[in-house]
Amino acid sequence: MTDITRIEAAAARLQGHARLTPLLNAPLLDRIAGRRVFIKAESLQLTGSFKFRGGWAALSALAPEVRLRGVIAFSSGNHAQGVALSAARLGAPCVIIMPTDAPQVKIANTRAYGAEVVLYRRGQDDRDAIGAQLSADRGLTLIKPYDDPEVIAGQGSVGLEIAAQSADAGVGAADVVVCCGGGGLSTGIALALQSRAPQMRVRTAEPAGFDDMARSLAAGTRLGNPAATGSICDAILTPTPGLLTFPVLQRLAGPGLVVSDDEAMRAMALAFSHLGLVLEPGGAVALAACLFRADLGDTVVCTATGGNVDPDLFRTVLQRFG
Amino acid sequence: MTDITRIEAAAARLQGHARLTPLLNAPLLDRIAGRRVFIKAESLQLTGSFKFRGGWAALSALAPEVRLRGVIAFSSGNHAQGVALSAARLGAPCVIIMPTDAPQVKIANTRAYGAEVVLYRRGQDDRDAIGAQLSADRGLTLIKPYDDPEVIAGQGSVGLEIAAQSADAGVGAADVVVCCGGGGLSTGIALALQSRAPQMRVRTAEPAGFDDMARSLAAGTRLGNPAATGSICDAILTPTPGLLTFPVLQRLAGPGLVVSDDEAMRAMALAFSHLGLVLEPGGAVALAACLFRADLGDTVVCTATGGNVDPDLFRTVLQRFG
Repeated sequence: MTDITRIEAAAARLQGHARLTPLLNAPLLDRIAGRRVFIKAESLQLTGSFKFRGGWAALSALAPEVRLRGVIAFSSGNHAQGVALSAARLGAPCVIIMPTDAPQVKIANTRAYGAEVVLYRRGQDDRDAIGAQLSADRGLTLIKPYDDPEVIAGQGSVGLEIAAQSADAGVGAADVVVCCGGGGLSTGIALALQSRAPQMRVRTAEPAGFDDMARSLAAGTRLGNPAATGSICDAILTPTPGLLTFPVLQRLAGPGLVVSDDEAMRAMALAFSHLGLVLEPGGAVALAACLFRADLGDTVVCTATGGNVDPDLFRTVLQRFG
Repeated sequence: MTDITRIEAAAARLQGHARLTPLLNAPLLDRIAGRRVFIKAESLQLTGSFKFRGGWAALSALAPEVRLRGVIAFSSGNHAQGVALSAARLGAPCVIIMPTDAPQVKIANTRAYGAEVVLYRRGQDDRDAIGAQLSADRGLTLIKPYDDPEVIAGQGSVGLEIAAQSADAGVGAADVVVCCGGGGLSTGIALALQSRAPQMRVRTAEPAGFDDMARSLAAGTRLGNPAATGSICDAILTPTPGLLTFPVLQRLAGPGLVVSDDEAMRAMALAFSHLGLVLEPGGAVALAACLFRADLGDTVVCTATGGNVDPDLFRTVLQRFG
């Protein structure tokens, strides 16, 4: 499993390849939140989300002969792009299985990074069977989106940076609110902070109706969501907490936070106005929790995990909440 | 006048107060541009533009008793916000004279930072008379937007960062394309690069119809623009090159670049899609030049100078060019 040594090794492999993203803040945003809010802007990461870190960490950990046979991933778009660009830069063939209802910008960019995109119809096609056949035929290695020790280690590099940048900003004890799907980023950050900033505690943030992590943490066991789709937060709609991630978050994270789609969109509009950041809905849920939830301290750090959003949706957000 | 010593002193005063903004790039954007493009994202600076640097540099250089009497500035919005936040943090009363047609977000934010905003009707009211009266009555010190050695020195800190970050990114010789109004930022960067990265050369970028700097550089003398308004690039519509800035740029800058409003908007849409950045029109002209002009080298650095844009305009940009 992932530990701080593995996270440090992943961070070393990412050095010079991933971007050290800034920790932002804005006085007028603090006023709205009623607390100090620092934003780790992973939307500015290469490929527009933190997923590049995990993709690069996983691919760079493969034996060269395995990597050169190629990799495959299932993703609605951010993991897809992270794996696709990592594969292109490391010379690995790459197949991405994506649902037809993924945001168009994510499908287009995944192709533009050089990946072969195979689309499936959500709820009709058996994506696992499609992937298994392709993997068997071509000898591809599956890169999981979160239940993989190297992927978690790569995402954990965000935690190392949060610890260092928060210290530079004079932040001591703080909740670190993390946008949560399967829990790979939350887990990597929690493990990094345990070593580097033990006074900071991870809190997961999820969209209403897809709060499997919050309910699982409360129940002490992995629970699923009632539905597979139905939120605009496409990037973080996972069926259940991960097998590797849940035990770590049970040990290290506080209670999970939940926000509505409207709150996520309000956070997107405020990030537009006060931070100059383009966020996608799933990348704005942690900021939304920091802005609109009472159950947090005076100083919070949140992840802005992704910025890959179709222009039409962004226009709607600005029209309704800008 | 400003020199590298003054720029370094301003940078030292800015340390811990202004943000070290990231130098971004995106593989898919490079493909569109047909060259390597690095973006110095000053839209992520406090107050959403580089102007905070010059404001802070100027106010922090004042004698305390002068500063405490208060400051005054004329601005359509970015210099206004930079001076207003600097004044608030340094305990100085602050009056900002703004045109009624300034973007609403800029007027609102300037007030939110605690400044007293006095509005005038462009083309009807005598803003200079209004300012002179207020200054005389209250003993306020005028903070000019560009023709001030300390303001230029503060903006020059961007150049110090570009030199260091470009070296880290392995960039050697390059054109550094800078959004240009009166020329304060271009001049500060040019002076910083002359000392720290002499293989890099500043190129100014302006909106069509307001290309006074490009025409002045070509003519060898300061020329004005035929009109005062008529471009969406509100942040950089100045009547003529500055008295202090022009001689420096004549010596150090290459030929000026000019882009249309439509090209600036296309650059805004591409910054949205590929960089996750919200840019205002005047903050996107340098990126537009890097994307759409042949007269530049294989590797360019550009400034993204501001991100303060009304949501309605941004929606229009996404609708037309997204």
